[in-house]
Amino acid sequence: MKLLKQTLRHIEEVVIDSRGDIRTRFKAFAIPSGSLGRLEELAMIYASIKGDLNCEIKHKKIFTLAGDHGVVAEGVSVFPQQVTEQMVQNFIAGGAAINVLARCVGAKVIVVDCGVASHLETKQCLKIKKVGLGTRNMAKGPAMSREDAIRSIEAGIELIEEELQEGLDIIGTGDMGIGNTTPSSAILAVMGKMDVDVATGRGTGLDDEMLQRKISVIKKAIDVNQPNPNDPIDVLAKVGGYEIGGIAGLCLGAARYRIPVILDGFISTAGALIANAIEPKVNNYLIASHVSAENGHRIMLKLLNKVPLLDLNMRLGEGTGAALGIGLVEAAVKLLNEMATFHEAGVSEPVPVQP
Amino acid sequence: MKLLKQTLRHIEEVVIDSRGDIRTRFKAFAIPSGSLGRLEELAMIYASIKGDLNCEIKHKKIFTLAGDHGVVAEGVSVFPQQVTEQMVQNFIAGGAAINVLARCVGAKVIVVDCGVASHLETKQCLKIKKVGLGTRNMAKGPAMSREDAIRSIEAGIELIEEELQEGLDIIGTGDMGIGNTTPSSAILAVMGKMDVDVATGRGTGLDDEMLQRKISVIKKAIDVNQPNPNDPIDVLAKVGGYEIGGIAGLCLGAARYRIPVILDGFISTAGALIANAIEPKVNNYLIASHVSAENGHRIMLKLLNKVPLLDLNMRLGEGTGAALGIGLVEAAVKLLNEMATFHEAGVSEPVPVQP
Repeated sequence: MKLLKQTLRHIEEVVIDSRGDIRTRFKAFAIPSGSLGRLEELAMIYASIKGDLNCEIKHKKIFTLAGDHGVVAEGVSVFPQQVTEQMVQNFIAGGAAINVLARCVGAKVIVVDCGVASHLETKQCLKIKKVGLGTRNMAKGPAMSREDAIRSIEAGIELIEEELQEGLDIIGTGDMGIGNTTPSSAILAVMGKMDVDVATGRGTGLDDEMLQRKISVIKKAIDVNQPNPNDPIDVLAKVGGYEIGGIAGLCLGAARYRIPVILDGFISTAGALIANAIEPKVNNYLIASHVSAENGHRIMLKLLNKVPLLDLNMRLGEGTGAALGIGLVEAAVKLLNEMATFHEAGVSEPVPVQP
Repeated sequence: MKLLKQTLRHIEEVVIDSRGDIRTRFKAFAIPSGSLGRLEELAMIYASIKGDLNCEIKHKKIFTLAGDHGVVAEGVSVFPQQVTEQMVQNFIAGGAAINVLARCVGAKVIVVDCGVASHLETKQCLKIKKVGLGTRNMAKGPAMSREDAIRSIEAGIELIEEELQEGLDIIGTGDMGIGNTTPSSAILAVMGKMDVDVATGRGTGLDDEMLQRKISVIKKAIDVNQPNPNDPIDVLAKVGGYEIGGIAGLCLGAARYRIPVILDGFISTAGALIANAIEPKVNNYLIASHVSAENGHRIMLKLLNKVPLLDLNMRLGEGTGAALGIGLVEAAVKLLNEMATFHEAGVSEPVPVQP
């Protein structure tokens, strides 16, 4: 609790382009005003967070946080639980989608065991931040204790602090956890105060019958636990997950150290909802990489007041959307730093032409 | 005319994933089926064009084609005409947005003078394919002769053939030409058989009064020239531009040699409309990188039956959207080639779970 409290105390408000100098620099570039669209906005957000107009992105890291979910006992996923661990091994071996996409944008993948249901050993690219051997079945009681919810958030903050030493200019969030769209939908339903039916989607590929079962399970979990929508840690404890708490911690920790956070999809955004409710100042540190094909993600992004950069019908998680988003943010920041002005390029500025 | 005829004779139909083996490979990957969304579609398009499941993208080139437009005499742009040449110099110096974004994705920029209104010298990264010293004022007669329209298309085909020797795995299109949203809107209005008002936007930043003037000028040009909507070369000659013809040629030449074409924004897509009307088989070689903020681009993309990858409110041209699109296509192709299967990764496949 101490680390969380300390972190929250140090999160500063970011005002986007507070002195107007980023906008001024874009206006001086030899392009029609505003013609780089959202790339200008991205550069502005990034430079404002860094507080430096001449910032560079050197150290890019994607945190893929893994955890298991007791609620899988209710039959909410088409994949068996051991796939969480198997995919962790796949991440370590470098053969997963996130490994490929992270290589594309020059980002390092940091795989973290936040609560896989089996014992894993620390390896070069696997960190152990295990809060428990999978959460408990939230359809029968709280997924975890309030203490463990805080521990999971603090694990995320610790990850940021550990990686800071090597350098950390931008992070992407990512997740792996069989069943984890179920707690994410529950978090959305509770915190967004909306129907479970609206907040719930097909995850990795449920048929109609399984979708109905998943909806009933989530309704039951909310009914049994009565999470308090005004207490995000209570929501995380009762209907969340270890990796979701970890992602919330990544957002808070990154904000504390003024590091931009590129959110991945549905599960990452559930973590961001928790972080944003704990400390709304975190919001301006968050960039939504994409909108997932998973039902409800679009609603989550609206709750956070974010417009996603990409809409490619992806729904894999792992940090795959975040990797693509990092590529776009980096492009935007390079434009801010490498383009020539009208003056430098000897290009005439616009003047209304009279025929 | 010989080169164009020859090129058209050799363009083959691409059937996307004709043997179903790309889909089969994606199904074997250790991910929920279809969860990579449009990245799977992009990999399928790319590999189908190449006819090779194990294709790699090594040589990436963005062609930024420049040309001037006599119609600027009517006051359709806020920028003076000499900006076309000044920006060509900026491209050569490496200080423009397209240079920055091409570097981000490891693409080479090839700047081409298709018809700038001043004499330019060949340089290492500037090719001269000049058809004329700017088009004529289309509000008073045809922008160019039919022969010159064909020459401009053939210039684009030549560019592909010249670059093939060095290697050419994917191309992006780009444009520079003060006033060139005016002929592009005219092409859209004629070929899409729609109101000029709907097809016309603010270009580099017209106010309401100038927008109305631009609309009148386009209406006059169509009225004076009576371009035949069923004869794309006639449309290009009467209300087009040299760089637009060049882009049409790039599309046709690339299709002939089975090279995927990543289209940039409004002007590039006007060129693609011409190419697609000349030879509809070209369509499957085209990928729309983004939808521009310029009015009418969305309609053009619908005419081509393309869904853009990005919607970032950009409207710069130069090939900037295409550069970002190349990054996404490359990511997709790497996924196809580098991901581990369920079997390789030792990951359990989905099975419906019974509670």
